[in-house]
Amino acid sequence: MPVSRSAPPRPDPDPPVSRTEQKERTRLRLVEAALSLIGQGRPFSALGLREVTREAGVVPAAFYRHFRDLDQLGLALVEMGGVTLRRLLREARRDGIPPTDMLRGSVLIYKRFVEDRPLVFRFIAGERGGGSRVIREAIRTEESHFASEMAQDLRAIGTLPDLSSASLQMICGLVVTTMLNAASDILDLPAGQPKREQELVANFVRQLRVIFLGAARWRER
Amino acid sequence: MPVSRSAPPRPDPDPPVSRTEQKERTRLRLVEAALSLIGQGRPFSALGLREVTREAGVVPAAFYRHFRDLDQLGLALVEMGGVTLRRLLREARRDGIPPTDMLRGSVLIYKRFVEDRPLVFRFIAGERGGGSRVIREAIRTEESHFASEMAQDLRAIGTLPDLSSASLQMICGLVVTTMLNAASDILDLPAGQPKREQELVANFVRQLRVIFLGAARWRER
Repeated sequence: MPVSRSAPPRPDPDPPVSRTEQKERTRLRLVEAALSLIGQGRPFSALGLREVTREAGVVPAAFYRHFRDLDQLGLALVEMGGVTLRRLLREARRDGIPPTDMLRGSVLIYKRFVEDRPLVFRFIAGERGGGSRVIREAIRTEESHFASEMAQDLRAIGTLPDLSSASLQMICGLVVTTMLNAASDILDLPAGQPKREQELVANFVRQLRVIFLGAARWRER
Repeated sequence: MPVSRSAPPRPDPDPPVSRTEQKERTRLRLVEAALSLIGQGRPFSALGLREVTREAGVVPAAFYRHFRDLDQLGLALVEMGGVTLRRLLREARRDGIPPTDMLRGSVLIYKRFVEDRPLVFRFIAGERGGGSRVIREAIRTEESHFASEMAQDLRAIGTLPDLSSASLQMICGLVVTTMLNAASDILDLPAGQPKREQELVANFVRQLRVIFLGAARWRER
């Protein structure tokens, strides 16, 4: 009986991957490669296309099947950051916020959230004032979406009932920029210095308290 | 009478430049070259030494007579940013702040200040969350110096007399991060859209007002 030159097909350990899934995976690898380079201290706007494809382990031409240019990849990262931030609110809603000390509880949830996702927050904090205008504008838009969602949440739990929607949005905007500034500080906390960590958390809580005290006294005019 | 081969010395139009002055000039050219590259959208932490010396019109070796590495040059830029910010307070003190609407007046002074120095503010806003930890830490230190000075100013004019120095510093810290965030927004204002400019200023004034309302209600505990 003649032996076939090709080995009989072995059962694949993974289920078959569709073309669409394959494409999604490559896209994700490119996005994660960019994040990983940012995590190594490379600023996003200085990344080269070949550097990203090398890190992702794909050929340079593959890049263009997913993104027109690096700014488009940056926008995907911003979007990812926005999704991440909204997940924060969802988790906070699900866990419920400790009623004894709402702000401190929220800050601790946020801190853990940032520490679990250092690359995304490093990217957002770095590019908010960074080199690409397209990316800066996209980050502002995500901040504004996040502030709206936070405003709706505050409305739903009956906080600051006398404020107009516009004022609530303005105040949540201030909370969001304060949070994003703190993200960079949280990520730079040196390990094994619990005192400094406590001070950072205490300062962050106090600043948010000032904002909410001010919000409670805000009068529309 | 034999003619000398060398032409007689002509009176120099500029006064003679000492070695120290010459050195200072080269240093300034390197700093300004880095700022200029940042103004062209290049993130600071991606700058190369040769790129900076080329822009400055000096040989690469000259760099090391002024800075150990690019981070050292970055620290000089941060210092320059700090000096710039403190000049802002000095100018505001000299001009006096319009008593009818202190916050709006201060915001307009600050906005003009940022617009007159786009490169320094672009650098500070970009590197606050940017790629170099040394630079990020230095910017935080400058922010803290600036917040202290602002706190002393508020103390001197008798604002918020019931607050402890620590609380005043915490509140001024919040004002400073809000100002630096706004710098990036101010620099991105598109020309010829006065409506958007008015909205940005109005929003910035409202956010500062929320902070000061909160500060006035702050109770030490």
